[in-house]
Amino acid sequence: MQTFVLVHGGWRDGTAWDPVIEHLGNLGHLAYGPTMAGHGNDVNKVVSHNDCVSSIVQFIVEHDLTHVALLGHSFGGSVIARVAEEIPERLRRLIFWNAFVPQNGNCVLDEMPPSYRDLFSTLAAQSDDNTVALPFEVWRETFMQDADLETAHSIYSTLSPEPLQPFVDKLDLTRFFELEIPKSFINCMEDTALPPGEWGWHPRMSQRLGMYRLVQMHGSHEAAFMRAEELARKIVEAGRD
Amino acid sequence: MQTFVLVHGGWRDGTAWDPVIEHLGNLGHLAYGPTMAGHGNDVNKVVSHNDCVSSIVQFIVEHDLTHVALLGHSFGGSVIARVAEEIPERLRRLIFWNAFVPQNGNCVLDEMPPSYRDLFSTLAAQSDDNTVALPFEVWRETFMQDADLETAHSIYSTLSPEPLQPFVDKLDLTRFFELEIPKSFINCMEDTALPPGEWGWHPRMSQRLGMYRLVQMHGSHEAAFMRAEELARKIVEAGRD
Amino acid sequence: MQTFVLVHGGWRDGTAWDPVIEHLGNLGHLAYGPTMAGHGNDVNKVVSHNDCVSSIVQFIVEHDLTHVALLGHSFGGSVIARVAEEIPERLRRLIFWNAFVPQNGNCVLDEMPPSYRDLFSTLAAQSDDNTVALPFEVWRETFMQDADLETAHSIYSTLSPEPLQPFVDKLDLTRFFELEIPKSFINCMEDTALPPGEWGWHPRMSQRLGMYRLVQMHGSHEAAFMRAEELARKIVEAGRD
Repeated sequence: MQTFVLVHGGWRDGTAWDPVIEHLGNLGHLAYGPTMAGHGNDVNKVVSHNDCVSSIVQFIVEHDLTHVALLGHSFGGSVIARVAEEIPERLRRLIFWNAFVPQNGNCVLDEMPPSYRDLFSTLAAQSDDNTVALPFEVWRETFMQDADLETAHSIYSTLSPEPLQPFVDKLDLTRFFELEIPKSFINCMEDTALPPGEWGWHPRMSQRLGMYRLVQMHGSHEAAFMRAEELARKIVEAGRD
Repeated sequence: MQTFVLVHGGWRDGTAWDPVIEHLGNLGHLAYGPTMAGHGNDVNKVVSHNDCVSSIVQFIVEHDLTHVALLGHSFGGSVIARVAEEIPERLRRLIFWNAFVPQNGNCVLDEMPPSYRDLFSTLAAQSDDNTVALPFEVWRETFMQDADLETAHSIYSTLSPEPLQPFVDKLDLTRFFELEIPKSFINCMEDTALPPGEWGWHPRMSQRLGMYRLVQMHGSHEAAFMRAEELARKIVEAGRD
Repeated sequence: MQTFVLVHGGWRDGTAWDPVIEHLGNLGHLAYGPTMAGHGNDVNKVVSHNDCVSSIVQFIVEHDLTHVALLGHSFGGSVIARVAEEIPERLRRLIFWNAFVPQNGNCVLDEMPPSYRDLFSTLAAQSDDNTVALPFEVWRETFMQDADLETAHSIYSTLSPEPLQPFVDKLDLTRFFELEIPKSFINCMEDTALPPGEWGWHPRMSQRLGMYRLVQMHGSHEAAFMRAEELARKIVEAGRD
């Protein structure tokens, strides 16, 4: 039995993992999907990247979890890299699922293509609270292109505005890149949340991990909804010794 | 129900779409496979790229088709990009299936690796009518490598010589790159009609579309014959709102 | 019926092909899995790259095999390229399965990322007999990441130390790159024995073949164990006319 802590991406909270957690349970594993500070509805959106990191650290410590396979999706990759610096002794493996592995000193926005940088900065400036509401057209075409329109609208309604600050906080990842915790990268082959090529997820992000275990599957950035059972099996494959 | 107009590639005519059109019909959609000027047997091969474009424009206008999902395969990608400049008001979405998205000012031959440029120019010069007959060995290895030899010979016999002129006409695509029609790219993962890497289809061609919807499937450049039903389903996925 | 000669990779001997040979037989084909000099247990490990080549040449000549589809896996790719220079008249097709296609004048180690170059040189220097014992952690994460731990340990126990000398012998492949024998490349999409990207198998190695037939499948570097039946079918597809 593996113990997983699943860290969601931007515009999301921990409930995004419900279908995957159920399937991981059916496969005999224990999984948690905590929500980071500033994420979800009706919460204070004035948060830093460190606040996001602290949410996960506190969750793991308060539940006294050890031998954890810690998975980060998308923005969550930048968070688990920092969590690993804080509580490495509790972690058995790090799993990046189409996730940011920022270069030391970069912020998450630095790792995005210029079109996203401009879009997100503009949208945050237009908001009341420095948050980014992802336009439906962008999300539907590049995050969940494998759903029919009705499903896409239904899942889109579960998103909440993303605070910009955690995207622009520069990250000191010196200790992360020296850690010897085993690492895996799950690549959904049709994930275009980062555009394939120069700015893509794989191998751009994955190769920064040094030696890593690659697990691939078909699916989009929203495979946690569209292919929850297959994703659960791939998480088990990525996490096992 | 979606309305599709399917634009064939080089060495082909509209009959190449027959199996796909049948499957799209079974899925509840209406699809047309017009033949471009200069394509097919026993036709005048002295045509320009503009003649090819006009064939498709005329077909759509004469049938008074609107809300069209216009798909181009291979060479057909360069044609639908120009068609979209002429009758954008009739098009709901553009779908490029392992198709050329030429850079503004380039001809199709400019987008091919040097080996093809040399081969096609040489073969056209050796012909009576400035056409290129694709050698069986090249086509069998790089276009339809997933067929057995008998099937390959059978499908090869349906090819006709391709006029070179539409490959060498320089294309003004200024308006195309300003159009806001949604775009999709279908990538057959084993398509080596353009060699993977520096000169490959994806992401080299796809990323020129700006924001686009990626749909992937296994298969070669001749998936319209080898995987007609799966391709039809992927076309629906690429075309729907 | 095709006749295959399957050339194993490093740390391996011909018995690695047993499951694949059985499936090829079930599909109606004849396949041999000779062992190269210096490979396997309880053998003289003082061998050169030429000795490896001679093993395969001798095997084919002694069995008087003709019209051979000669397949090389991994390190075996560098061997079949040289075998093809020696006995081209006996070969119908060359198949590289996630295999080295060295640039003319390079050794196999030149084609590996710096991390492997350093690791293998260090391990050989620490050995008694200039061999490299592949560390379990490296092999498990990058060669056979799709197995459970028990299977991984079981297969790992069949490896033997690899002589370094064949990895560092510079190879004159002038004749190979002029040969007109048809070539195929089988790419296992999750094979990370060479890390995806700058130093990856495909398209880095494959594109050096000039015109080639691409066959892809899912699986890791050890697909001969994990997906023997599927691999056998892909070998047939890669080898047929």
